[in-house]
Amino acid sequence: MSPKKEYAISPKRSEDFPEWYQQVIAAADLAENSEVRGCMIIKPWGYALWERIQKQLDLRIKQTGHKNVYFPLFIPLEYLQKEAEHVEGFAKECAVVTHHKLEKRADGKLYPASPLTEPLVIRPTSETIIGAAFSRWIQSYRDLPLLINQWANVVRWEMRPRLFLRTTEFLWQEGHTAHANPEEARQEALSILNLYEEFIRSYLALPVVVGEKPESEKFPGADTTYTLEAMVQDRKAVQVGTSHFLGQNFSKANNIRFLDRNGKMEFAWTSSWGVSTRLIGTLIMAHGDDNGLVLPPTLSPLQVVILPLIKKEEEKPTILEFAEKLINQMEKLEFAGEKIRVEIDKREIGGGIKSWEWIKKGVPLRIEIGPQEISSGILTIKRRDKEVKEKEKLDLQQFLDKLPFLLSEIQQGIYSRAESFLKDHSRFIDTKEDFYEFFSSSDSSDKEIGGGFAYAHWDGSREVEEKLKEDLKITIRCIPYKSSYGDEPGICPFSGNPSKRRVIFAKAY
Amino acid sequence: MSPKKEYAISPKRSEDFPEWYQQVIAAADLAENSEVRGCMIIKPWGYALWERIQKQLDLRIKQTGHKNVYFPLFIPLEYLQKEAEHVEGFAKECAVVTHHKLEKRADGKLYPASPLTEPLVIRPTSETIIGAAFSRWIQSYRDLPLLINQWANVVRWEMRPRLFLRTTEFLWQEGHTAHANPEEARQEALSILNLYEEFIRSYLALPVVVGEKPESEKFPGADTTYTLEAMVQDRKAVQVGTSHFLGQNFSKANNIRFLDRNGKMEFAWTSSWGVSTRLIGTLIMAHGDDNGLVLPPTLSPLQVVILPLIKKEEEKPTILEFAEKLINQMEKLEFAGEKIRVEIDKREIGGGIKSWEWIKKGVPLRIEIGPQEISSGILTIKRRDKEVKEKEKLDLQQFLDKLPFLLSEIQQGIYSRAESFLKDHSRFIDTKEDFYEFFSSSDSSDKEIGGGFAYAHWDGSREVEEKLKEDLKITIRCIPYKSSYGDEPGICPFSGNPSKRRVIFAKAY
Repeated sequence: MSPKKEYAISPKRSEDFPEWYQQVIAAADLAENSEVRGCMIIKPWGYALWERIQKQLDLRIKQTGHKNVYFPLFIPLEYLQKEAEHVEGFAKECAVVTHHKLEKRADGKLYPASPLTEPLVIRPTSETIIGAAFSRWIQSYRDLPLLINQWANVVRWEMRPRLFLRTTEFLWQEGHTAHANPEEARQEALSILNLYEEFIRSYLALPVVVGEKPESEKFPGADTTYTLEAMVQDRKAVQVGTSHFLGQNFSKANNIRFLDRNGKMEFAWTSSWGVSTRLIGTLIMAHGDDNGLVLPPTLSPLQVVILPLIKKEEEKPTILEFAEKLINQMEKLEFAGEKIRVEIDKREIGGGIKSWEWIKKGVPLRIEIGPQEISSGILTIKRRDKEVKEKEKLDLQQFLDKLPFLLSEIQQGIYSRAESFLKDHSRFIDTKEDFYEFFSSSDSSDKEIGGGFAYAHWDGSREVEEKLKEDLKITIRCIPYKSSYGDEPGICPFSGNPSKRRVIFAKAY
Repeated sequence: MSPKKEYAISPKRSEDFPEWYQQVIAAADLAENSEVRGCMIIKPWGYALWERIQKQLDLRIKQTGHKNVYFPLFIPLEYLQKEAEHVEGFAKECAVVTHHKLEKRADGKLYPASPLTEPLVIRPTSETIIGAAFSRWIQSYRDLPLLINQWANVVRWEMRPRLFLRTTEFLWQEGHTAHANPEEARQEALSILNLYEEFIRSYLALPVVVGEKPESEKFPGADTTYTLEAMVQDRKAVQVGTSHFLGQNFSKANNIRFLDRNGKMEFAWTSSWGVSTRLIGTLIMAHGDDNGLVLPPTLSPLQVVILPLIKKEEEKPTILEFAEKLINQMEKLEFAGEKIRVEIDKREIGGGIKSWEWIKKGVPLRIEIGPQEISSGILTIKRRDKEVKEKEKLDLQQFLDKLPFLLSEIQQGIYSRAESFLKDHSRFIDTKEDFYEFFSSSDSSDKEIGGGFAYAHWDGSREVEEKLKEDLKITIRCIPYKSSYGDEPGICPFSGNPSKRRVIFAKAY
């Protein structure tokens, strides 16, 4: 045996982070690339994560008064043109349907036929088509606020796709609301920002920094874009969600007008907001380790997996019966307001292979049950957040008493580790030299891990942003909102001009 | 006042059934046409129906061992060509993406740019792209059966769209499975047929006839297509779901091979099956009446709506408090394995308007609560399945005791009515004259109601099918499966040739 420690994922995070990410996805069997460039196939374990996210987030979206709807996949080309900035922002990544038939030609191959008089764009987002409906649905202040949401697929053509993080087609929810005054619309955008933050903290066990995007990074057509930025283990930022106060931009483009309380016709104020399957990519990069995926118990499709250790066929009935009873008892318990999710893996494959599969899939707890466990009544518990070989022995009743607490401890641990990581790699930086030094550690291959979130002063100019993007491939992730961390005025180290507060610079996915 | 009875929907079913259908959808605020031809906007109440269907059906699909996944929206053109019958069947209705950018030309307008080297088809169904993945995922009999499902949007270009029943884009679930032998694959297709039947009976309160499609009506590329056919109130058939035994057709086209138990390479046997938002259209047409939608309690997003009768502002707190308490008590009760779903309509609009809104939306029970109800403790209950003005008085405790039973009675009633309707308009027909007479009552405008399900003998020939389609616009809906109703041999009344059993002829959506 080699004294060297073995890990399930090769390369390790420290060796080649991007490749480690791909390997974790493969090892946990989450997704794979399809033969359609940029489009992924989400496999059962990956889709189960998305279903967990959907279920929990949908609950929150509904509890705050939003109703689900479904709008068409296709957007008439002319709709997109109505809002100038919007079309500018999305024109370069729109998939366009131009024909509605296929016909076989003399060479025996199929070709597009029956051209459309007006091409259709596959929705990159639905402000324009929803705006057209809002203009029909809204007549008076009594129709406001109008609060809707949809779970849908969208398409934005990607030149450099990466599973979950950046795919041509992705799944998301998009909320769209209209209000009778600007304060309420902005408040909606901010409430959703809070809702997302709470959800991401409690269900993805992920701390995020929330703030406002600078002008250059705003959603095309928005008045203000609020964002949630997470830090993953190569210290880059991932924008995990956005919420936009759209002002009257889209209501003017779509003629969404209402009769106000004073009998005056007025354009409505709107908001939109969304999170996507990108959350799964972030989760992998934030919590995964060199043995694969690590899932927070709140999110994990399974919280406990039971692995029967069957050496002789005649032991099987007793072991399975014991396991079933244990499952029944566990399912009576709750964690985070839901029944404990537990499964027994009855497949007839080697115990080692089986165990490693669940390690790589990130399930919080594994319980091995063999003849010894049954005769002694002592269970062997293995935690995904501990070393692979570490085990805890608990008698059955102790284990049942402790289970919700154990899950809570794992949840807390995962969150704390991510929080420390974020803190450790967030820094106030006051000179240009320190700033360049902070970011220069990561090389151009993106394999090196370095940098982090630099809280630095900025004069608000486009020039500074562009220079830093060119030199260091970094961008302003956000102007922190509601955080007093760095909110004192100062001097921009790049221009010497005054700055109102520090903003966060980072490399980003 | 006119002595004539007034209904909420105009025209009535008997006056113009297709127009009545559109008006019910508008009155219940379920959906509307978008400006993209053939694509609908599913509004909150309509989408809530779909969510109910999804939730209940998804549960059943998972309970039978299927896992959810998500495959790309786009299918490479060449994939479609792999199965000859399949492409033949879908080529005429495929939306094709040919460009992945928009660019502004000198006229200031946007045009498609960056043509794709290989056009992409928007999935009309996913056998081909899923088959390509199956060929990668399946190596040995140990990988079988492979049982997956996805909830997705699909596009089939429609020249004569109709909300819910036939739309260019629609929502559905599509199951895809692969097996090690033909018996198991066929059994899978049949098990799902049973699952659908049970679901449609118990959750949509709809009796269906199940059977096999004749060759001419099979899914393109299938070996056998099993179907579920419902009868709606104009006596036409709606195909509400299909389940296909695909034989080795798609596995040969996609090279899905596995090493069997004897070490021999073999092509897998596959199945696929789906139901769609068409279920909602069927539900409306089957159960709706001249006052709008009628929802079975199992499916209805709300089972009880409380309508506060507030005449004076000072009564409001007492009434709302009483209503909230009532809701709390009701929510402790269960019906069909779920908590009772109840809501209070607090909107400040006239009681009559409010009441009619919920009638049109089909909610099973309405409870009006005013000062009188509070002081007497006697509730006024109105049932959607009774006359609008009919009411039942029950004291609070009686009502709570009776509520699950009431819902069950309504559920049974809706089912029984649909079942009687189906029986009343299903007939054994033995002569050509009677057959033509049976179907001739409905005129070419489709506004007249007539015909039904004709159980007649058929010699199995394409000629007879085509002649009847031409003369009467009818098709063979199915060759009934597992029903002994009409399974005796006989003579085809159209050709005089022998027939093995009766088949069902009907007009269809």
